[in-house]
Formats: sequence, C-alpha cells, structure tokens
Amino acid sequence: MGVVPDAGCSRMLRDLQAFIRIPSVSSQPRHALDVQRCAAWLGDQMRQIGLEHVAVTPTARHPIIYGDWLHAPGRPTVLIYGHYDVQPADPVSAWTSPPFAAAMRGDHLFGRGATDNKGQLFAHLEAMRSMFRARGRLPVNVRCLFEGEEEIGSPNLPAFLRQQRRRLVADVAVISDTRMLGPRQPALTYALRGNLALEVEVRGPARELHSGNYGGAIHNPLQALCELIAKLHDGTGRVTIPGFYDRVRRWDAAERAFMARWGPSDARLLADAGANRAWGERGFSLYERTTIRPALTVSGIAGGYTGPGVQGVIPPRAIARIGIRLVPDQHPREIDGLVREHIARMTPPTVMATTRTLSMARPAVIDRHHPAMRAAARAYREGFGADPVYLRSGGTIPVVAMVQGMLDIPTVLMGFALPDARIHAPDERLHLPTFFRSVQTCQHFLEAIGTMCEMPVDVSRRAVMAVH
Amino acid sequence: MGVVPDAGCSRMLRDLQAFIRIPSVSSQPRHALDVQRCAAWLGDQMRQIGLEHVAVTPTARHPIIYGDWLHAPGRPTVLIYGHYDVQPADPVSAWTSPPFAAAMRGDHLFGRGATDNKGQLFAHLEAMRSMFRARGRLPVNVRCLFEGEEEIGSPNLPAFLRQQRRRLVADVAVISDTRMLGPRQPALTYALRGNLALEVEVRGPARELHSGNYGGAIHNPLQALCELIAKLHDGTGRVTIPGFYDRVRRWDAAERAFMARWGPSDARLLADAGANRAWGERGFSLYERTTIRPALTVSGIAGGYTGPGVQGVIPPRAIARIGIRLVPDQHPREIDGLVREHIARMTPPTVMATTRTLSMARPAVIDRHHPAMRAAARAYREGFGADPVYLRSGGTIPVVAMVQGMLDIPTVLMGFALPDARIHAPDERLHLPTFFRSVQTCQHFLEAIGTMCEMPVDVSRRAVMAVH
Repeated sequence: MGVVPDAGCSRMLRDLQAFIRIPSVSSQPRHALDVQRCAAWLGDQMRQIGLEHVAVTPTARHPIIYGDWLHAPGRPTVLIYGHYDVQPADPVSAWTSPPFAAAMRGDHLFGRGATDNKGQLFAHLEAMRSMFRARGRLPVNVRCLFEGEEEIGSPNLPAFLRQQRRRLVADVAVISDTRMLGPRQPALTYALRGNLALEVEVRGPARELHSGNYGGAIHNPLQALCELIAKLHDGTGRVTIPGFYDRVRRWDAAERAFMARWGPSDARLLADAGANRAWGERGFSLYERTTIRPALTVSGIAGGYTGPGVQGVIPPRAIARIGIRLVPDQHPREIDGLVREHIARMTPPTVMATTRTLSMARPAVIDRHHPAMRAAARAYREGFGADPVYLRSGGTIPVVAMVQGMLDIPTVLMGFALPDARIHAPDERLHLPTFFRSVQTCQHFLEAIGTMCEMPVDVSRRAVMAVH
Repeated sequence: MGVVPDAGCSRMLRDLQAFIRIPSVSSQPRHALDVQRCAAWLGDQMRQIGLEHVAVTPTARHPIIYGDWLHAPGRPTVLIYGHYDVQPADPVSAWTSPPFAAAMRGDHLFGRGATDNKGQLFAHLEAMRSMFRARGRLPVNVRCLFEGEEEIGSPNLPAFLRQQRRRLVADVAVISDTRMLGPRQPALTYALRGNLALEVEVRGPARELHSGNYGGAIHNPLQALCELIAKLHDGTGRVTIPGFYDRVRRWDAAERAFMARWGPSDARLLADAGANRAWGERGFSLYERTTIRPALTVSGIAGGYTGPGVQGVIPPRAIARIGIRLVPDQHPREIDGLVREHIARMTPPTVMATTRTLSMARPAVIDRHHPAMRAAARAYREGFGADPVYLRSGGTIPVVAMVQGMLDIPTVLMGFALPDARIHAPDERLHLPTFFRSVQTCQHFLEAIGTMCEMPVDVSRRAVMAVH
C-alpha cells in the first residue's frame, strides 16, 4: 500500500522549500506580513491538493487556516493539526546558511521551521496529495487546522475552537510535533505535563539604595525573593505549597512497570542532561519525576547589578519567573490559587510581593489502547519498519489539552522530529529520508484509520482518559 | 583670618570649569587619554600654585600625582588626598546640559565630577594658592596625593603607597570626599565600614535544559543559589556564617549615647530610604545597624531568562553578587575565608559552587578627640559659621584604611558635598557659595593645624584607634 513519492520528489522538495522560505516568525512584529503571506500560501496549497472549504481566518494576531474533505460517509473523521509559524532565527550569524534560504546539504534541508513544524505539517499535505492523485479520494474524512501562533502560546486558538466547535467535530486528532528516538525508532507520546508560568515580584524601598548607607536596616527585596523561593521546596525536593499534591494521580504498578520498560533509565536521563547527580522526590525514577510527578522550576531571576565592576546596591525590586509542570489531575487555575496564597502567606511584612500569571496549560494523557493509537503504531511500522515506543513527555503542548478538553477529541501525537533536528536552535534541519518516510507514514495512518473504520464517535470519546 | 576669594573669583571658576571639562572617566577605556590629560593639567596647576617636586607617576592604568611644600620646619605635615577621576556620565541624555560642559546656572556649576571630587579637591588647591599669594608660604608642610582610579577601586594605590612610604610621611591626612548635612551644617565623618565584595557562582547541568524534560529530576542551579542565599541570614536578620560576629567590636554606653544624640533617628533613616518597615538585628537602632554592625547584602543575581515571553528553562549556572560591610575588628581576609567555608559547607552535592573575591577594604575609625579633628571643627566653624556634627558612615572609602594601615597616618574626613549634589547621577552639581566657603575652610584647617603645631608624630599616631 501507499503511493511512493518518487516522481514527484523534486516538486515536493521545491514546494517545501518555498514554505520554509517564508519567514513566518510569529513573535516578531516585523514578520507579521510574512506570517500572513505564509497563511495565504498554505491555503493555496490546500486548495491545489483537493481540500475544500479552505478558509484563512484572521484573528487578533495571526490567521488560523481551516480546510476539509468530507466525502467518505460512514468513515471516521480525522482532524490534522499543525502550525505554520516558526521561532525567531536569532542569532542569524550562528547559521551555516541563512535561516530562510532552505539550503540543501547532504541528506538535510536547513532552515528555521524545517522540522518544527513546517516539515511535519507538510508531510500530511503531501500524503493527501498523493492519495488524491492516485485515487481521487481519501480513505477517511479529514479536517485540517493550521495555526500561526503556536510559538507564542496559541493565544487566539481557544476562542476559535469554541466558536467553531461544530465545524471541528472529528473522531480523532493527529499532531506531528513530537520526537522520534532516532531515524529508525519512532515514538508515540501518550502523556504531556501541563504548565503554569508565573512571575513573582518583590518590592521594598522606593528607590535603589546604597548598601553601605542602608545595609543591615532595610530588607533587601532580592534577598527576600531568595528566601521565598528557598521555601518552595523542602530538603527532599518536594514542593511545600499546601495542597499542591492533593490531586496528583497515583499510577498503579502495571503503568509504572510499563514506564520502566519503555522509558529512559536514570543513567540515560542524567547523561542527556549533562548532569552528574539526580535530584528530586524520593520513591520515583527520574523518568517518573519528569512525567507523572509535578515540578516547580525557577527559570529566571533579575534584580540588582551583576555587570562589570562592583556596585553595592539594595535594589528596589526583584523578580523571579516560576514554571510549574502539572500532571493529572491538577488544575492550572487551582494550583495558581494555591501558589498565590502560599506566597502571600510567606511574604514578610518588610517587603511586598505580587504574583502575576503568565500562561496556563492543562496536562494531557492519551489512552495507549485507543484504536487511533493502534492505527498510528501500524502506520509507523509500515513507514519506518519499526514498532514505536510509547513515551510520556514532561513537556507541554497546550493544543493537545485544548483539543481534548474543548472539542472532546482524542489526540494522537505521531511525531517525526529527530533528536538532532536542532529545533529552536541555529541550523535547524530536516532529515530528508525521514521526511519521505513520514509522508508515507501519514498515508498509512489515514488508511489504517479508514480500515479500522466504524469507530463510533462515542466510543472514541470514552477512550480518552479524563484530564479535568 | 582667611583670604576671601573675591577678586580671584572669576579666575578660580574658569580654572575649575577647565578641570571639570576634561572627561577623566577612569572606568571607560575610551577616556584613558582624557584621564592622562587631566593628570597633566592638574600637575601644571600644582606647579603654578607653588607646590614643589610635582610628579605625575604612571601606573598600570591611570597616573598618580604627587607634589609637596616642606618649608615649615617644626610644623606638622598634612597629607591632602583627592581624586581627579570621575564616574561615567551615562545616560548623557538625562543631563540638562552636557556633563562635561561645566555650565553655570544660578548658584550651581553643573558637571560630572563637579562635587565628586574635582570641586572638593580644587578647594584645597585654591586655599593654598590664596595663602601663597598673600604670604608666599603655607602655615604647615603639605604633601598632595591625587589619584585617578578612585572610582574603579584604587587598584594601583596600595603598591604606590608601599613604594613611596618614606616620601609620604605626614602627621595627618585630610580627605574632602564626604557629605555635609546641608549648606550650613558641616559634618565630620569619624567611622567607615569596610567592604568585602564576592561573586558566588552555582553550576549544575552542562547546558541549559528544558524544564519540561528535566524539571523535577535535576537540581536547578538558580534554585540552589536561592537556597544558599536564604541560609545566609536567620529569621532575625543576623548573618549565620559561623564566626562572623566573633571580632565585631562592642561599643560602650557612652559611644552609643553619643551616636543616638548626633545620628539620624530610625524614622529619619526609613524616610530617607523610602521604606515603610525596618529590618535587621534586634537590639540596635537603624543608625547602629548601618554603622557599628556588619551587614551582608545580595546586590545582584543573574540566571535563566526573564525577557519577553515565557521560556521554561533550567539554566546551567547562576551567579550572585554579595557585598559585606565590615566593622572593627573584622578582617576582610578572615571574613572572606569564613564565607567561602560556609558556602562550601552548605552547597549540596547536586550542584557546584565557586566563590570569587572581587574587592576588599578595611573598616576605619578616627578618634573624634584627635587634635586634627579639633582643627577641622574649628575650620568648619570659621568657614561655615557652624559646629560640625560627628557621624559614622556605613559606606566605605578604601583609601582611608589604606592611609591609616599602610602609612600609619590619622585621617580627617572634612567633606563639602551637599546631600543634593547628585553625585554619581545626572546633573551632578557644585553649590558655588558652599564651594567658596570650603576654600576658606581648607585655609582655616591648615592654619589651625599650624597653630596647634608641635603635634608630635608619635602622639598623633597613638591617637588613631587601631583597626587591624
């Protein structure tokens, strides 16, 4: 099965290069028109392929693109999500070839977005193009949803999903924005942690003070901030915020044995981190600590002076960025409340603390036994000649919980990114043999979903583990 | 007594303007030649006035200028110290007139260095010029020592003092680089805290890690740094480093009563700081906490990401700048050792900590009853029509302890800087009526020292409280 992309190969690469050459950097206002141009280009591609009802919908910032093909009555409907925006390419000087030149060297196509996410999104389009060309139809109904704000936290996606809920009805969603373990080792990610990002500001004196004149008599906001942060963990690495662990789901021995079998060992995780010593909650492997246990990270502190020379100052304010990775069944909003209460309670009367919430995303878990997961496993097997491994990720893809929570659609994370794709870094690249296999895998996936067919909508819904 | 600077007034101002117009910014390499030019200009002025043996001595960075007049046999010798280098003028755009234009507006001369320290140094030169003109001689022997590196921590002064020890023999040193309380309220500073500046670096993983992938399993260096810093004080504001207070001198009831009488109240200190609440060691007034008690200040922290947007990272390293204000009889080097031991002992095995010493300066105390202090009080009375108040400063002037410790000369801090002189800030200015009074005060000081005369060198030395 599957239509091998051989004759159309150079055309396919030319189109992918054209896609990568549009600098659709969502976070930089100077690229706003490029993002629009990229959305229009992608809409045209979708129409050329054979998708219908293609619409590029403006939002408060960058457009969302929708297109569908719904001529397979009785067959399941697949929602394909991807994002056409990219991270900034800075520092541009660190790139071997310009980040938006889409240069080909050896087996790789280099460029910002080559893997994240243009290459992976394009694999689905090419899969559909092949099928339309060969047979004039697809084996399932398809809805495509491509956004231009993933790299800035999808601010306008929730409202779009809410408004278009009826139009987005599907039996399964597929997102190709996660990693494989190697060119011949695919992986199905079946869990993601949520995230709660906060900023804590501690304020003291009205202005910067000379540490000679006031040191010893005024509580230093930077010191007070350190004292607050130090109180967020106990000596064993557990978070001390009252109620923090109350809703954390306990997994049974079978699930933990499954994780131990498929997941990385402590030694592997430490080696990948470039660290000598582990840290954190006792009674859990490092893989467990980073996936089924929540974590609180101080990701930045700013305050005072650390430039050349010595300046003895008591700064008037200091800030810390705190990120909390959440697991089922923690609610971001509830944890946000607990953190705020805790910080307010711990702040001494000598300073003032303000907590600001920067972003929230829920954790997500996908049933490994869902039929769509079996379809993805079969597709990988046919496309890559290997069974996928099943992994939990400690990271966060906000759209997964959104699609699960707002549209009630189970989501398959069928990723094609290689570990050395240099995502978000200079010289981001796409391994072309992997790309061609991913095009085939996407075809196999739609075919597998089609043959499984008669997947009743209500069953598929029940199969998702509730993550509310 | 005293020669009133009336006829020479405009010439004096022109010379002072010429002095201020040379941008002798010691910390900025692009001004290195300006610093040299300023040294040469100052040497010429000293020769014109009538000083002898004027020598501009190069150092590894900026020149030190020496000149003397030693024709008052049997009379005491006064060492006048000042600095001709200035702070950077950044941000230049915040100045009303260019920082090196020496513009005159109302009663003020505006410019970087106008008060700190060119105006105050120049007052001594003008006082001597007046005396040479009126009488052809000075009432005492004088040695002048003007350095060009005060604003960068006087790195080359100790070696110079060591080498030139014999040439710098004197009975008393005078430095005009401290504050008055107001235009009619002079102040004699009789104590300074020392300083020990350190940088603590905490290192963890080999590279920046994604907080999703590793949060919960790897000790975050930024968090570990906060945990270290939080352990440097107990809940009552006392420093927890073992041995830290061992050598801190206890002052008797009489001294504390003297301080309470002359020093600022808690309310005044809080109001000046723009703070609502006091903090720190119990059993001491805020003035005491900032002068006779040591203090540890975290003056800066850098680590991770605090820019726009959210980045969930575990930074590979984090640094903190720590400043410790020292009091008699703490040794900077001994405290440095205690801090290093403490940090090494507190650092958990999950991270590595490195402590670097950035600078050290000893505390200094001057006997209020020393004859030279009485001379300064009399000079202020004649120059400003008011008795000085006697204050301790919580700040640090490294040269004072150097002169006391290396040359064994008691130092009088006879400052003329007004609280609103905007030292180190944009629109730094010199209040001209105060400047003219300071010229007169400098004359009165030399005359008072001359009439006190027969101040035996050994007595003057014993009068200095040992601060070793």
